[in-house]
Formats: sequence, structure tokens, C-alpha cells
Amino acid sequence: MKIGVYPGSFDPITNGHLDIIERSARLFDKVIVAVSLNARKTPLFEMEERVELLEQVLKPYSNVEIDYFKGLTADYVENRGAQAIIRGLRATSDFENEFQMAVTNKKMKPKIETLFLMSKPNFSYLSSSLVKEIASLNGCVKGFVPDYVEQRLKEKYL
Amino acid sequence: MKIGVYPGSFDPITNGHLDIIERSARLFDKVIVAVSLNARKTPLFEMEERVELLEQVLKPYSNVEIDYFKGLTADYVENRGAQAIIRGLRATSDFENEFQMAVTNKKMKPKIETLFLMSKPNFSYLSSSLVKEIASLNGCVKGFVPDYVEQRLKEKYL
Amino acid sequence: MKIGVYPGSFDPITNGHLDIIERSARLFDKVIVAVSLNARKTPLFEMEERVELLEQVLKPYSNVEIDYFKGLTADYVENRGAQAIIRGLRATSDFENEFQMAVTNKKMKPKIETLFLMSKPNFSYLSSSLVKEIASLNGCVKGFVPDYVEQRLKEKYL
Amino acid sequence: MKIGVYPGSFDPITNGHLDIIERSARLFDKVIVAVSLNARKTPLFEMEERVELLEQVLKPYSNVEIDYFKGLTADYVENRGAQAIIRGLRATSDFENEFQMAVTNKKMKPKIETLFLMSKPNFSYLSSSLVKEIASLNGCVKGFVPDYVEQRLKEKYL
Amino acid sequence: MKIGVYPGSFDPITNGHLDIIERSARLFDKVIVAVSLNARKTPLFEMEERVELLEQVLKPYSNVEIDYFKGLTADYVENRGAQAIIRGLRATSDFENEFQMAVTNKKMKPKIETLFLMSKPNFSYLSSSLVKEIASLNGCVKGFVPDYVEQRLKEKYL
Amino acid sequence: MKIGVYPGSFDPITNGHLDIIERSARLFDKVIVAVSLNARKTPLFEMEERVELLEQVLKPYSNVEIDYFKGLTADYVENRGAQAIIRGLRATSDFENEFQMAVTNKKMKPKIETLFLMSKPNFSYLSSSLVKEIASLNGCVKGFVPDYVEQRLKEKYL
Repeated sequence: MKIGVYPGSFDPITNGHLDIIERSARLFDKVIVAVSLNARKTPLFEMEERVELLEQVLKPYSNVEIDYFKGLTADYVENRGAQAIIRGLRATSDFENEFQMAVTNKKMKPKIETLFLMSKPNFSYLSSSLVKEIASLNGCVKGFVPDYVEQRLKEKYL
Repeated sequence: MKIGVYPGSFDPITNGHLDIIERSARLFDKVIVAVSLNARKTPLFEMEERVELLEQVLKPYSNVEIDYFKGLTADYVENRGAQAIIRGLRATSDFENEFQMAVTNKKMKPKIETLFLMSKPNFSYLSSSLVKEIASLNGCVKGFVPDYVEQRLKEKYL
Repeated sequence: MKIGVYPGSFDPITNGHLDIIERSARLFDKVIVAVSLNARKTPLFEMEERVELLEQVLKPYSNVEIDYFKGLTADYVENRGAQAIIRGLRATSDFENEFQMAVTNKKMKPKIETLFLMSKPNFSYLSSSLVKEIASLNGCVKGFVPDYVEQRLKEKYL
Repeated sequence: MKIGVYPGSFDPITNGHLDIIERSARLFDKVIVAVSLNARKTPLFEMEERVELLEQVLKPYSNVEIDYFKGLTADYVENRGAQAIIRGLRATSDFENEFQMAVTNKKMKPKIETLFLMSKPNFSYLSSSLVKEIASLNGCVKGFVPDYVEQRLKEKYL
Repeated sequence: MKIGVYPGSFDPITNGHLDIIERSARLFDKVIVAVSLNARKTPLFEMEERVELLEQVLKPYSNVEIDYFKGLTADYVENRGAQAIIRGLRATSDFENEFQMAVTNKKMKPKIETLFLMSKPNFSYLSSSLVKEIASLNGCVKGFVPDYVEQRLKEKYL
Repeated sequence: MKIGVYPGSFDPITNGHLDIIERSARLFDKVIVAVSLNARKTPLFEMEERVELLEQVLKPYSNVEIDYFKGLTADYVENRGAQAIIRGLRATSDFENEFQMAVTNKKMKPKIETLFLMSKPNFSYLSSSLVKEIASLNGCVKGFVPDYVEQRLKEKYL
């Protein structure tokens, strides 16, 4: 069984993430969406909330599992018995960061591959940071995030 | 059975191509390495030669098949019953061309995904064009291409 | 009266060009869509055909004029009494070419500005070359070009 | 009457900003230079100081107005009855951020366009951050900022 | 005597830095590796530690001197009587920052040149930040840094 | 004695090339400006003319020698007893080509370094191709090339 891990902060999940998950779910037997607990950034949504948002949004995908992890991504992926890390590429500016991560993970765990999907053009400018900035200024984020997330963002910035 | 198609000119196959094929062969049940007959460029190696070079080099890979095609890549991939197009990403300058191709193929055949693997750093500067340029100036291409291809390049530029 | 010139090869006009023209027509009193007769490339459509395609497609825009020119863009723009050159920016890879042209034109005619509009994300991967390549391989270009252009492309590649 | 808004932090105004304002003032009937009150960054100059620096430097431009705003740029531009947002593009690295902002603003307010001018080559490496870093280390910023701003920077870092 | 200064944070020195130093030491009569005391970032290693790590690692290079400095790099380089600033270029994303620094330093001290060496491909994804992030998550950094530095990193993150 | 080779097509020499030569001549004991006889492109100026233009323009530089070569740059540089290849970097789009060449030359001749200088901002958009295109359309190239070259370009396009 081929398993892919899609790691990220998901603070919160956007429609760009959702597109990558949908497409990955057709390629792998199982996709694990894994919230990375990166201590450096203060998230808007606590880990439990981010997992809950993912659970609400990803209900329809029967071969998608939600999880979270601490530590190196490469270690987590190996521990889960997965063959691949899944990443979305949005724009030229993503390229070199992603290259750095892919090469580093390959050096640590040579048997694990990183597979990239290109974002849909409509989502190529979309990021969780952008969504939070717009919501914080009372802007409308419809179309950027699933409806459930839009509602929760509004509550955060009441 | 998951099938991936790795299309290209392969004029000739380099060690960078070989690395992508090796890694893909571990992710897919079958990988089809497909020589694209693009009429615009005059190749150094005729189509039959390119296929023969691939056959020599790819003998050890039991789940790798060699083929060639005319016309749109997306049509060929669909006809072969494959789920994915495999592409290597070497550098920032590849990004936008590959994005254009991936988005165009997605528009034509929404069920077919393009999956990208990052080149190994040592191969990130390597291309068939570079190899041919060096060989044409009597430079040494050892390490850039498989030994069999190195020999055949020397014969071309005697 | 503010006049903008939108120069290009338009071989043929795409929906990406059309989007830039529509948006420019709301900003300027008059927009001149000017076919540049660049001798280096062999076009698919002759100059008269390119102008005719533009006329068909741009009929609804009352403040859009169609013209063609030989020689330096900066000279043409000055001769037409325009204040600005209009250009679309699709992607990072456009940036440096466009920067070169804008700086060169500014040096030649300091009073003429180049104004850039960002392409819609859906058109950011679209070019006349891509459209011709797909059409030449019997692929479908619906959504990439206006319907009238799609028909004419089919006739070219019968 | 065509109105353009040039939003930014202007902490402080540089000669690069000044060049964009001068050129915009010839294209629009009115240009509003609008200081954005972005709470995230701690500015060197308070909002009142930034406005005052702009007023000193922009006195000679009769059709340039200075203002400040909170909230979404797109909302501010609409409220001011402007047709366009003006932005300078300095380098490849600006491109994708600016693309993101332009696309987002277009989605929120479809009638408002973002127009880009390319920086003069001499200013393509210039930013308020660079100027502040040099001044903080007692370096000379003559030629980077207007004389009045140079004086005020010296006072800040006495 | 031609002297080159290689400035940086060196927090800590990586094998990528070491490669640039080795190659520079063959081109210059003397290379000064100069730790820049930039107050903005909180370093992992104190200045004294960074100097000590450099001393341990650079012992074999007889024409390499280790130093540290406060203030503008251009001033330091002039004070040391050097003709050139040495910088490594790893990737496209380095380019514009380095261009900004080189142009600014040239403006301040027109007689001092900045010379760039391209990183080895194997080190093109390597940075002190990456090394610290991996070490902080108990990952292995062998091959990324000299052995002595690897040991000291382990002690920091016990 | 440190010798640097500055290879290129120089078809014709521009003020951007001249700037790199001037700056290199202060760093090396001798700089060899070497015209590469690349058979693929049809030059505007024959090899003898390109050498003659270089001789006219570079007369004032006593430690600059002019030469031409066939074959691999790395072989030529080694044969001339030089330690370094000199290259100018103009813009992000130069980076990856130059990286490819530098890495390839390093692989062939590990003792030879490629040293890069950043172009002056005013020349960062300048190329021989641009100059020829403008001159061919009767545009003015003053400031882009030395006066002697400007005259010769005019004669070519009479």
C-alpha cells in the first residue's frame, strides 16, 4: 500500500491545500495530512483547532487521515511507513525552499521521495498568511478557504 | 496498477534522467519512458537511436518500459492508461515552463496529474544540450551520462 | 486625452491579451493595439490576418483602435502622441525582459511611461506560442483564445 | 478625473519612491500617496513623522495629495474614488508578492486596477530598510533619500 | 599583496563556507574571515564561540586570518587594506540580496570590489539556519558542518 | 602572477563589458579578453572585426590582452596559465546559466575558479543583442557602447 504524507502548518487549511489533498488522494492508497508543531511561529489556531478544522473539511475523503507531529518531518514519515512526502508548488519563490527541504530529507532518509504537485493557477497566490491578514482587516475570504474555516476565522477576529 | 509516464526528448539520456527514472520506478508499478517526437528540433540521435540508448541503459529496471509517441503528451498518457506524468525539476528556470505544461495538461485531461521530483543537486545543472555541447568540443562527459552513452557520443563527434 | 499603446505580435491574439485590452480600455481614453512587424520570427498569421483577427475580436470596444508598425516601439508611441506603453506581466520569467524593454524605451523617450498590468492567474501560463503548439498537435484551444481565433487556427492546421 | 493611489509604509520615503511619484503624477490627474498603518512592523518614524516627511518632499507636486489609512488597501482606494493602485517593481523578487497583492485586490474590488511602473535601474536595489540599516551604522545615505530625509535620519541615529 | 575579506555571521561555519574559504585562499595572498556582529539577530553561538569554531576549523589554512567587526562591512574592508569582498552564491534567491549589497558597497567605497564564487552544487541548499534547525530537532548534520562543529552543535541542543 | 580570462562573444563589446574589464584589470596582474568562436550563432561582426573593436576600445588598459579561441573555455584558460575565469552577472536570469557553466568548468579543471562581478545597475539591462536590435531599427545606442563601436554599428546598418 502506497502512503503519502502531506505535512504543513495548516493555520488554517485553505482551498489551495484542499486542492492538493484531493488530487493526492487519487494517487495514493492513503494520504496522511500531518500538522507540524513548529514552535517558532505563534499560530492563530491552536493545534487542536487546526486538527478539528482539517477533520471538518476532509470528512468526505475516505482515504485521508489527519495527524500531527513534533520533530523532523523525515523521521515522522518513516515512522508512519510512508513512501512519499507530498508538497504543493505555487510559484517560483517556493522553489528553492522546497528544493532545500527535499534534498535535506532525501539525505536523511534516502528511501523517501518528495513529490510535488503544481497548484491550480487560481490558488497560486494563496497562502494561510494572506488569508489571516485579510480576515484580520475584516476583508472577505470567501473562495480562499472552505466555508467552515471562513466562519471560524470571523470568530477569531470579532 | 499505478502507471507513470516520463516523457522527454532523451537526446541522449543523461545521468539526471536516469536518477529520476530510478526513483520513479520505486513509486509506480510501471514507469513508461516515452520519447517525444518533436519535429521542431533537429536531434543529434535519431529516434531509433534514442530508444536503443534507453534500452541499453534501462535494462536493469524490470518495471520500466520504453516507448515513443507523436502528438500531445496528454493524449498519449491517457491512451496508455497512465495516472501521472513524471517530470524532474532542476532549477528555478525550469519552474515556469513546467508550470505551463502541467496546467495545460491538467486542463486537457483533468484526471491525469503531473508529479515532480527535484533533481539531485549534482545533476541540477545537467542537460542533454550541455552534454552535446561539451562532447562536440571534445570535452569529457564522464559522470554526466551512462558509459554506453559516452561511447556513442564520442562516435558522433569523431 | 490619455492614449496608451499595447504593442505585440498578436500571432494570434489570446484571451490573455484580450483581458489586458479590456482592463486598459477602462483606464485610458484610447487604447491602440499595435501589431509589431518584427522580421526575425516567421509568423503563423500574416500581418493582415493578425489585424483582421484583432478587428473581429475587438469590435465591442469603442475606444480601442488597431494599427501596425515597423521600427522602434518608442518611436511609434511618440508618433501616435501616446503617453504610455501597456504591457501584461504573466510570470517571474517575463520580468527581466520587460524591465529591459521598459528601461530602454525610457532612455530613448523619457516622457513615455511603460505601465504593467498583472495577468489574471488563469492566463498567467498562456501565450500565443503555447496556443499554436497545441493547435498544431490537434489539441483543443477552447478557453485559450476567442472562438473566432479558435476557428481560424483549426483552418491553419487542417 | 483619473485618480491613482500609491500606498506604502514610507518609513521613510526614498528617492525610489519619489521617482515613482513623479512619473505617476504625469499620468494621473491626481495621485494620493497613502501611508498604510500596518500594525505588525514597528516603524522608525511615527505615522505623523512619515506624513510630515512626505509633505516636505512632495511640496513641488501640485496634483499629489498625502493621506494615511487603516485596513484593507482595496477598501481605502474604493472609498477615495480612485481607479488605480500604483506600485513600483524593482526586481524579480518583488514580482510574486506584488502579483499576490494585485490578484487579491482585483478579487475584492474588480473595478480597481493595479498599475506597475519599473524602477529606474539606479533605484532597483534601494529600499527603506536598506537606508535605515546604513544610517544606523553611521553610513552615508546621500543619493538614496531626499536631503531633508537624510537630515532626519541622522537625528534618529545620533 | 591582494587581500580578500569574507564577511558573514558564521553561526556556525558550515562546509559550504569552508568550500568558499578554501577556494578563495588559492586566489588571494591573504583571506580574512570576518565575523559580522549584527545586533538584530540573536545568535546561537556567541561571538567568541564563533571565532573559536572558525579557528579550530581553519587551522590548516596558513593564509587565512580570523577577525570580527562592528559597523559597515565596506568601512571594515577599507580599514583592513583589502581590495575585495568575497561572497558565495548558492541559488537564484541569493542573487538580489547580494546584488543590493554589492551595489551599495560599491557606491560607498568605489575601489573595493565584491567577488562572487558559485557554491558547489552539493552545498547549494546548505545554510547555517538549516543546520541549526536540523540539530535542534535532533537530526544528524554530518556532512553539513565540520566534525568539530557537529560536536558543538550537539552540546548546544542537549 | 595572477591571470584572469574574460571570455565572451563580444559581438560587439558594450559599456557593460567595458565596466567588467576595467574593474577586473585592477584585481588581476593580467586580464585576457578572449573572443570565443562559437559556431552556432551567426555574428554581426566577424571575428577579426570583434578583435579590432576590442583593440580600439581597450588600448588604455596596459594589463589587458586580447585573444580569441576555439573549443572549450576551460581548456583555453588552462593553456593560457590563468587561475580564473571572469564573468559579469547582470540579473537573476543570468544566474542559472552561469551556475551551469561555472560548475561544469570546475568539474573539468578543478584548479580554475570562476569569479563573478555584479554589473553596475545602469548596465544590468544591457546586452550585445539589445544593442544590435536597437541599431538595426535605427535607434540611438549612445551610452550603451563606446563611441567607436557606435560608429561601426551605424556603418553595418546603413
